[in-house]
Amino acid sequence: MLINGIETDQISANDRGFQYGDGLFETIAVENGKPVFLLRHLLRLRRGCERLGIDFPGQEILESESRKLARSVHSAVLKIIVTRGSGGRGYRLPDSCSPTRVLSLHPWPEIVSKLQASGIRTRLCKSRLASNPSLAGLKHLNRLEQVLARAEWTDPDIHEGFMLDRDGKVVEGTMSNLFVVRRTSLITPDLDQCGVEGIVRTVVLEIAREKGIEFVVKAIDVCDLEHADEIFVTNSIIGIWPVIGCEGGSLGIGPITRNLIRWFNGRKE
Amino acid sequence: MLINGIETDQISANDRGFQYGDGLFETIAVENGKPVFLLRHLLRLRRGCERLGIDFPGQEILESESRKLARSVHSAVLKIIVTRGSGGRGYRLPDSCSPTRVLSLHPWPEIVSKLQASGIRTRLCKSRLASNPSLAGLKHLNRLEQVLARAEWTDPDIHEGFMLDRDGKVVEGTMSNLFVVRRTSLITPDLDQCGVEGIVRTVVLEIAREKGIEFVVKAIDVCDLEHADEIFVTNSIIGIWPVIGCEGGSLGIGPITRNLIRWFNGRKE
Repeated sequence: MLINGIETDQISANDRGFQYGDGLFETIAVENGKPVFLLRHLLRLRRGCERLGIDFPGQEILESESRKLARSVHSAVLKIIVTRGSGGRGYRLPDSCSPTRVLSLHPWPEIVSKLQASGIRTRLCKSRLASNPSLAGLKHLNRLEQVLARAEWTDPDIHEGFMLDRDGKVVEGTMSNLFVVRRTSLITPDLDQCGVEGIVRTVVLEIAREKGIEFVVKAIDVCDLEHADEIFVTNSIIGIWPVIGCEGGSLGIGPITRNLIRWFNGRKE
Repeated sequence: MLINGIETDQISANDRGFQYGDGLFETIAVENGKPVFLLRHLLRLRRGCERLGIDFPGQEILESESRKLARSVHSAVLKIIVTRGSGGRGYRLPDSCSPTRVLSLHPWPEIVSKLQASGIRTRLCKSRLASNPSLAGLKHLNRLEQVLARAEWTDPDIHEGFMLDRDGKVVEGTMSNLFVVRRTSLITPDLDQCGVEGIVRTVVLEIAREKGIEFVVKAIDVCDLEHADEIFVTNSIIGIWPVIGCEGGSLGIGPITRNLIRWFNGRKE
């Protein structure tokens, strides 16, 4: 683990990341010693910092530290956390403040590729996502909603739970974005009120555009899940996981999901 | 600073408090070497832990460490943070997990008593509070909404900003609870969708009951602020601060606020 460039796993308890969740993070797949979609992750991180008014630690340093850590392993999960740093009385921003960057490597979860082939079972969570346009789309450190939603089940055969907003629209999984296929069209929820704008979600939409697959970004109801021809979820570690069941219902791994997995796996940067 | 009983200010970056804001905190006034309302704070902390499924570190240890730290100073702010501890892959709760407790002392803000006498100017924040009944009332570590709201102004003559929920109801200040006086009645917002259930708020309601002051807990509109006879805000450090202005409007420090300040200052436990 590298904290502000130093090998340690200790941070100051005065850090605003710890005190208030005042920061952002990225979770990046490392394959063959390379961080996948690194530039996209760093761009999202920079934009998130701009939205929260956090000083961006700098493209060059984050890129070089990420590549250096990734080179030391074959497969792994690279996590980057950036916080506003230490200081300030209460919630008020400090007059000057140096951001904290934490880069850490974690074991690659071997189950990922198995589930990409077999598909996953899912459920609907009771915990809802609150709406806040100022935070929507951001991968920020305020993650209690996801922690509570993930704590709703312990069944190891359920690999994801979908979260609804206060209006009953399905927004995303606890750790993934959601896509529904209806006939030949892709649907994925809009994220202007809540949810995380995932890197793989964006890449899947780019692929759809290139390949001429119709897609629409709009609210999804629970009954859209029930009537879906295909469902899949995405994030930077799992890539694309087909959904073969949600609550009681079951469905197969369809041709659009299979094609997207193939195209996605072939275009990792 | 005491972290799990050891004098240090360093915590593990793997702590779920840092990773996800997966924890709670208390801010306690220390007066004459004693933590004010300590038992009430620890009770709220225990209840918060129960709601989030976090192991409570234990009444005895928290009480003895708090009193030990408080004895070393005359006036100070004592902050207690309790997190779920380290561990777990992603949001999923670890199979077993030992909570982290952080107790720290901070300088007493001398301005508190001056503003109790003079009253404060306030504003309305643009940042809204999102609704989430699972988290409502809790003093949890997911505080980005408050950080963004407090970042809206830098004018040192404005000492608090009020936050509205998505329906436009006024819920609380960025760091305080809100009371409005209308004729001889107290009104304070209900906190079942968002907001923090403050210790001083509860004490003020107890005093009102004892003294026969009518009060009602219900939603407050912006126009209720405009038509208020008196307004005051409460938290554990400021006690009660009269509000003498909000945005353009101004108002005096009324008899009910004055009485409540006197009664409150006389009954600190």
